[in-house]
Amino acid sequence: MDKILDTVDFEKGAGLVTAIAQDHATGEILMLAYMNRESLAETLATGRAVYWTRSRQKLWRKGEESGNVQVVKSIYVDCDADAILMKVEQIGDAACHTGKRSCFFREIRDGEFVDVGEQVFDPNEVYKK
Amino acid sequence: MDKILDTVDFEKGAGLVTAIAQDHATGEILMLAYMNRESLAETLATGRAVYWTRSRQKLWRKGEESGNVQVVKSIYVDCDADAILMKVEQIGDAACHTGKRSCFFREIRDGEFVDVGEQVFDPNEVYKK
Repeated sequence: MDKILDTVDFEKGAGLVTAIAQDHATGEILMLAYMNRESLAETLATGRAVYWTRSRQKLWRKGEESGNVQVVKSIYVDCDADAILMKVEQIGDAACHTGKRSCFFREIRDGEFVDVGEQVFDPNEVYKK
Repeated sequence: MDKILDTVDFEKGAGLVTAIAQDHATGEILMLAYMNRESLAETLATGRAVYWTRSRQKLWRKGEESGNVQVVKSIYVDCDADAILMKVEQIGDAACHTGKRSCFFREIRDGEFVDVGEQVFDPNEVYKK
């Protein structure tokens, strides 16, 4: 595993790299987040996407609360080794905390961003306070 | 155009947002780069992908040197408005300066990253010194 972790350039981004999650079957981009070395190591070890949350400053085991885990099918690194692409199976069909399938649910149409995303779940029901 | 630019959160990333370029026809992720407000404005005005290069600290009109411009088909913003997704037509069939179709040309196989990318052009011929 060290061979993989050592290939990725965590230095440039002060310990973090960008990570894209893409639906392995449809090619849809589900979300963009960040990983540190520890989260990539845990992703490799468990086969589930684990990110680093910059706002909460801790490991973020995707789907831990909602159940919407991401089963990792393949992992790529880009030319300058500071971005990761994961092809995943999105359990629960929704990646976004808003309940949308993809975090990229707003598209430019007629000069403004409009909501074009599919609502998969009600976040008020899934993330109970 | 201000309505679009004002929706995007450039503050969080010190003036920059992440931008993903995805092939509009195949869904393949071509590259990940950065945009400031000016580069997004020029992208909107010209219909060609314009990034901000962090290493050279200037506007990066993709394909200016190689001819491999990206014709923008649609633009999305993510839930927290700090990442942009563009679906593009990649002229010249290659997005990466290495001559690969995609910057994400290394995939984990048997415990290490291996080159699985399609070589579209010879960078030594395209970027003449």
